[in-house]
Amino acid sequence: MSNSSFSRVSGRAFDGLRPVYIQRSYTAYAEGSVLIQIGNTHVLCNASVLEKVPPFLKDTGKGWVTAEYGMLPRATHSRMDREAAKGKQSGRTQEIQRLIGRSLRAVVDLEKLGARTIHIDCDVIQADGGTRCASITGAWIALADAIQQLIAKGILTENPIKDNVAAISVGIVNGQTVLDLDYVEDSACDADMNIVMTGAEQFVEIQGTAEGQTFARQELDQLLQLAQKGISELIQLQNQSRTE
Amino acid sequence: MSNSSFSRVSGRAFDGLRPVYIQRSYTAYAEGSVLIQIGNTHVLCNASVLEKVPPFLKDTGKGWVTAEYGMLPRATHSRMDREAAKGKQSGRTQEIQRLIGRSLRAVVDLEKLGARTIHIDCDVIQADGGTRCASITGAWIALADAIQQLIAKGILTENPIKDNVAAISVGIVNGQTVLDLDYVEDSACDADMNIVMTGAEQFVEIQGTAEGQTFARQELDQLLQLAQKGISELIQLQNQSRTE
Amino acid sequence: MSNSSFSRVSGRAFDGLRPVYIQRSYTAYAEGSVLIQIGNTHVLCNASVLEKVPPFLKDTGKGWVTAEYGMLPRATHSRMDREAAKGKQSGRTQEIQRLIGRSLRAVVDLEKLGARTIHIDCDVIQADGGTRCASITGAWIALADAIQQLIAKGILTENPIKDNVAAISVGIVNGQTVLDLDYVEDSACDADMNIVMTGAEQFVEIQGTAEGQTFARQELDQLLQLAQKGISELIQLQNQSRTE
Amino acid sequence: MSNSSFSRVSGRAFDGLRPVYIQRSYTAYAEGSVLIQIGNTHVLCNASVLEKVPPFLKDTGKGWVTAEYGMLPRATHSRMDREAAKGKQSGRTQEIQRLIGRSLRAVVDLEKLGARTIHIDCDVIQADGGTRCASITGAWIALADAIQQLIAKGILTENPIKDNVAAISVGIVNGQTVLDLDYVEDSACDADMNIVMTGAEQFVEIQGTAEGQTFARQELDQLLQLAQKGISELIQLQNQSRTE
Amino acid sequence: MSNSSFSRVSGRAFDGLRPVYIQRSYTAYAEGSVLIQIGNTHVLCNASVLEKVPPFLKDTGKGWVTAEYGMLPRATHSRMDREAAKGKQSGRTQEIQRLIGRSLRAVVDLEKLGARTIHIDCDVIQADGGTRCASITGAWIALADAIQQLIAKGILTENPIKDNVAAISVGIVNGQTVLDLDYVEDSACDADMNIVMTGAEQFVEIQGTAEGQTFARQELDQLLQLAQKGISELIQLQNQSRTE
Amino acid sequence: MSNSSFSRVSGRAFDGLRPVYIQRSYTAYAEGSVLIQIGNTHVLCNASVLEKVPPFLKDTGKGWVTAEYGMLPRATHSRMDREAAKGKQSGRTQEIQRLIGRSLRAVVDLEKLGARTIHIDCDVIQADGGTRCASITGAWIALADAIQQLIAKGILTENPIKDNVAAISVGIVNGQTVLDLDYVEDSACDADMNIVMTGAEQFVEIQGTAEGQTFARQELDQLLQLAQKGISELIQLQNQSRTE
Repeated sequence: MSNSSFSRVSGRAFDGLRPVYIQRSYTAYAEGSVLIQIGNTHVLCNASVLEKVPPFLKDTGKGWVTAEYGMLPRATHSRMDREAAKGKQSGRTQEIQRLIGRSLRAVVDLEKLGARTIHIDCDVIQADGGTRCASITGAWIALADAIQQLIAKGILTENPIKDNVAAISVGIVNGQTVLDLDYVEDSACDADMNIVMTGAEQFVEIQGTAEGQTFARQELDQLLQLAQKGISELIQLQNQSRTE
Repeated sequence: MSNSSFSRVSGRAFDGLRPVYIQRSYTAYAEGSVLIQIGNTHVLCNASVLEKVPPFLKDTGKGWVTAEYGMLPRATHSRMDREAAKGKQSGRTQEIQRLIGRSLRAVVDLEKLGARTIHIDCDVIQADGGTRCASITGAWIALADAIQQLIAKGILTENPIKDNVAAISVGIVNGQTVLDLDYVEDSACDADMNIVMTGAEQFVEIQGTAEGQTFARQELDQLLQLAQKGISELIQLQNQSRTE
Repeated sequence: MSNSSFSRVSGRAFDGLRPVYIQRSYTAYAEGSVLIQIGNTHVLCNASVLEKVPPFLKDTGKGWVTAEYGMLPRATHSRMDREAAKGKQSGRTQEIQRLIGRSLRAVVDLEKLGARTIHIDCDVIQADGGTRCASITGAWIALADAIQQLIAKGILTENPIKDNVAAISVGIVNGQTVLDLDYVEDSACDADMNIVMTGAEQFVEIQGTAEGQTFARQELDQLLQLAQKGISELIQLQNQSRTE
Repeated sequence: MSNSSFSRVSGRAFDGLRPVYIQRSYTAYAEGSVLIQIGNTHVLCNASVLEKVPPFLKDTGKGWVTAEYGMLPRATHSRMDREAAKGKQSGRTQEIQRLIGRSLRAVVDLEKLGARTIHIDCDVIQADGGTRCASITGAWIALADAIQQLIAKGILTENPIKDNVAAISVGIVNGQTVLDLDYVEDSACDADMNIVMTGAEQFVEIQGTAEGQTFARQELDQLLQLAQKGISELIQLQNQSRTE
Repeated sequence: MSNSSFSRVSGRAFDGLRPVYIQRSYTAYAEGSVLIQIGNTHVLCNASVLEKVPPFLKDTGKGWVTAEYGMLPRATHSRMDREAAKGKQSGRTQEIQRLIGRSLRAVVDLEKLGARTIHIDCDVIQADGGTRCASITGAWIALADAIQQLIAKGILTENPIKDNVAAISVGIVNGQTVLDLDYVEDSACDADMNIVMTGAEQFVEIQGTAEGQTFARQELDQLLQLAQKGISELIQLQNQSRTE
Repeated sequence: MSNSSFSRVSGRAFDGLRPVYIQRSYTAYAEGSVLIQIGNTHVLCNASVLEKVPPFLKDTGKGWVTAEYGMLPRATHSRMDREAAKGKQSGRTQEIQRLIGRSLRAVVDLEKLGARTIHIDCDVIQADGGTRCASITGAWIALADAIQQLIAKGILTENPIKDNVAAISVGIVNGQTVLDLDYVEDSACDADMNIVMTGAEQFVEIQGTAEGQTFARQELDQLLQLAQKGISELIQLQNQSRTE
């Protein structure tokens, strides 16, 4: 597991992120609208403020944050069927949108948000691996922008956002632990994890899968280390983008 | 119906198009990928070449051109439900994607295309009226780019595209006939038509609807005149974009 | 485009309608119930008065007119799958029922109708081309009968119907413009239009499609002329049937 | 249970059928097409010959007889939702169409039918109770007509139909056993049965339901007696209609 | 039809039930929970008390008893598709669960039950013929246990259950009438019936089907006789199980 | 995080499993059939051998292992809607069944399995937390039994199973890390993880979620330690059960 002779197709270091580009106010109508590009993975994250809450929160005074995820049919190398045409969302889509929602709620004080929902739509325009992580990282910015607007309008007086949240993938490729897998690495990967962490370096979600090749405790420790580094960089980029 | 005292909110002349901006190769993987912006209406048109044909064309040697249409949930002023989550495409969506497919097929020689399908996905990123017309106009460019690639690769020797095709809306707003309605005009509109025409100024589709206020033959003639002018300009822009 | 040597399989003149037969009170329970037969195309149009309105009209005092369309599985030469068994209505079905609803609403004053819905079911018993046009023409009579009943019962004091509405198809077959296409003509047709007009000869809907062979402005003018003639005859038949 | 003081709203005797009217060749395209009217219950039964069999009969040389059932939305006193619009057939609809199919197959030699399917569509135009029984009785005639056509064309040499089959409802209304319940009787009914029998007075299906009021063995015997009388009359009418 | 030389694969007499084993309180949470085993047919019947009624009973003060039926995918010799995965319940499933509900309601005074629903879930763990009959027989015990709990809690003061109800299948196998068919007999069966009766020997439901071989009145009488014997034994077992 | 004053409602030690009871050959037909009870959580795991593979493995000679998961409607304290009746599986159900399938495949050599599928159905009879972990642990035994049968029949000569696999939940409840959460603990839980490991103490899946309260790296380490202990005990029980 020494890195001496190791090289990635992309030329990146084993612990290097792909170039990240964040564009706020990408569309005109959403209260928060962020196009996040991590390498060739491009996701549009639109945050909508809805003045209603789901039934289970009725009359509690608490708000909600939720997400939906979709992929344009030709976001990928070969065209996939359109989920709206098939008449249902795949298990994978539902898994991802549930993950995004949970990750965001972990850093929001739902009492302070009040009886409203922030609904984040994450739509993948182009996919080269890591779309769920890019969605979470971009969605947090869209969420923060939407909340900022509620504060600017005087609808909220206190900011319900408690911390940043961002996500990155790590994995073991040809026996080497690497950060931020692209599609080719992901496909060849023995084991991979998606890690979601806060600005305070607390874990929010850990999803590790080793269908191809199980991994030992020591490898897990290395992967967690890498993820921590990557997420710390992403959170810096989130904050930079919001001060521009 | 004199134009002396007439003014549009946008400041446009009654026969003026909104600014049109066309970006080719917008995404990396589709054989043709066009982002078309007509004012605040932005549609991504991705053309995929699929080496198969629908069942009814099996063993005929003929090819097919078809389209699917979707709108991102927050493309509009207020968020709409995601069709994939609802589990079905609306009647409006199906109507539009059938229209796009027919319009493109009217200018393609399916025999020359050979036993393959060009599948165009039109996804509306932002909507301010006229999304079906922008889809058709952009889809033709994506189609032409995908075909060009087949020719460049030597898969096709003859170009199956017989002519350009483009589309524009016209309508009667406050008694005045106008070209290229935006969302506000469309909502206030007494009657509106979507016209699809070829480079040779032949009609492909005419869809006129006058739920609010029926219209006389003379008004129809004026609307057709306006559409002809608008489409002729759009076709010039299509051709310019492909030589850049 | 001279008619000297022209002949239709049916023996009809190029501008001749098929025989029209209208039977009112066809079923016992519907407030308006009309079987319309245009040649071999037979459509049962049942109008139901429902004392409720769709959600978007709640508390406005306005009423609604809407339609649903269906085809019995063996209305056609070969059996089609039953939409209820397939679990969804086709895009074509939805397109047609939306068209019927819009056409009828164009001649009804929804304020005067009051907070109720007239729901028209158009079910095709036998199909030989032109089912959507026959549906509109028959549905208007069923609508008028249902309204008449509301007036007779003293529920309405003023008639909300502003004018007749009827529809007919026209097309170019072997280079010749013809009125009221049957199935064989429709299949062989280069271009066809469905035109919906009022008694005052105002246009309500124009739907022209030229997938096979695009058409020039001059041909369009001829088609509109033919449609105007046909619709004028249909409206006379509507009125006759209601005085019998 | 003496009949001295008994009277039915319709004036019928306790063992009297409603007037039956059978019209063959009702539509132009189906191989067998029968409109059967039993009182105010009107069902259109169309038999289609399909030159294919369901998967489980592949390569067996045997044929199949199956049925689908539907009700026009305004066949009843108040409008019901359209099953195609709701996106599924109700449990009741599925129960009925399975019953019709089984009843018909009981009198057909599927080996002699050969590798083809007779698909019967029973669509209720107007409903006043007993629609499933009218469907079976009418469907048999449509089936026989379709088979006759196969024999006339020389496709079949032997008639695969072994016997007639017909169906009728019986029930206990206000303590009195009656034949052929109309909708009002059916609603007020304590217990009712649908009986399907052959020309040889053999039972095919017995479906008795006593949700309101259970019944004793002696009452069951009376009900079976009544049904036998009614079915014998219906089979006579079936045979008459086919010789006209 | 003499029984001299007759023998069943199982060695049972022609009028013998399979061994019946009833286990109450099978699961911990349901208000009534019964595992009923009739030979190799094992059904878990869980009764849930829901303090709500279906819409059509709103504000009537009456309660409701209803049932749902399911089969584990590998309850049978070869695996069947899971209905939840297919996205719909089969016609057979719906038919059976409607039957169970009707059978139970026939012996419950819905006024006395009050404005609540007893919802019975019958899930087949293992299937060897007769699952619908075992479901009804077991469901009655689960229902009685749930009601008993309502009485014990003082929620009900009077028992709304009017009588026992149980069900059994009978059929004609190789010309011999037999009681309680297992899967092998059911498959080879010429004609079979499911009979539902009360403790007072009143009929609740009779469902006879003779797709393979129709049957005469005399055979019907024998089948009814057999069923009466079987149900009388089952009801004794129901009562025994509840006193243990 | 000292354990001195800590106590669980169940009286268990913070690192104690609930009582585990495993019953093999629970149903008669499945090739492997295991009822696993972990405390009050009871799951029936049936393994079916299907002599076919999914389309993407066609002609590769490789086999497949997959799983489906369901919960009986009254497995829980209050009744849940039946997924088959709702017409779709929830996101949660799909997430779980995908997890079970991946976990099992991680320890199976699909080449050695040959062109067949082992399909495991995990149906929850009673649920008290940890159903997905119990499903994985029980499914492995059912899988092993089904494979054993293939070996016994001489269909397989080499055992494709490479190792055991089992799963357990861990979490932080009131600031204390605990093993094997029951429903009450799970509901009150700040953060919980499901860990899947092999007999060789390799990780297969890690799913940690901290919607309520994020957790630090040190806590993660404690949780992983606990899981390792629990899984090691479960694997011992798996092996014991298979030698009985």
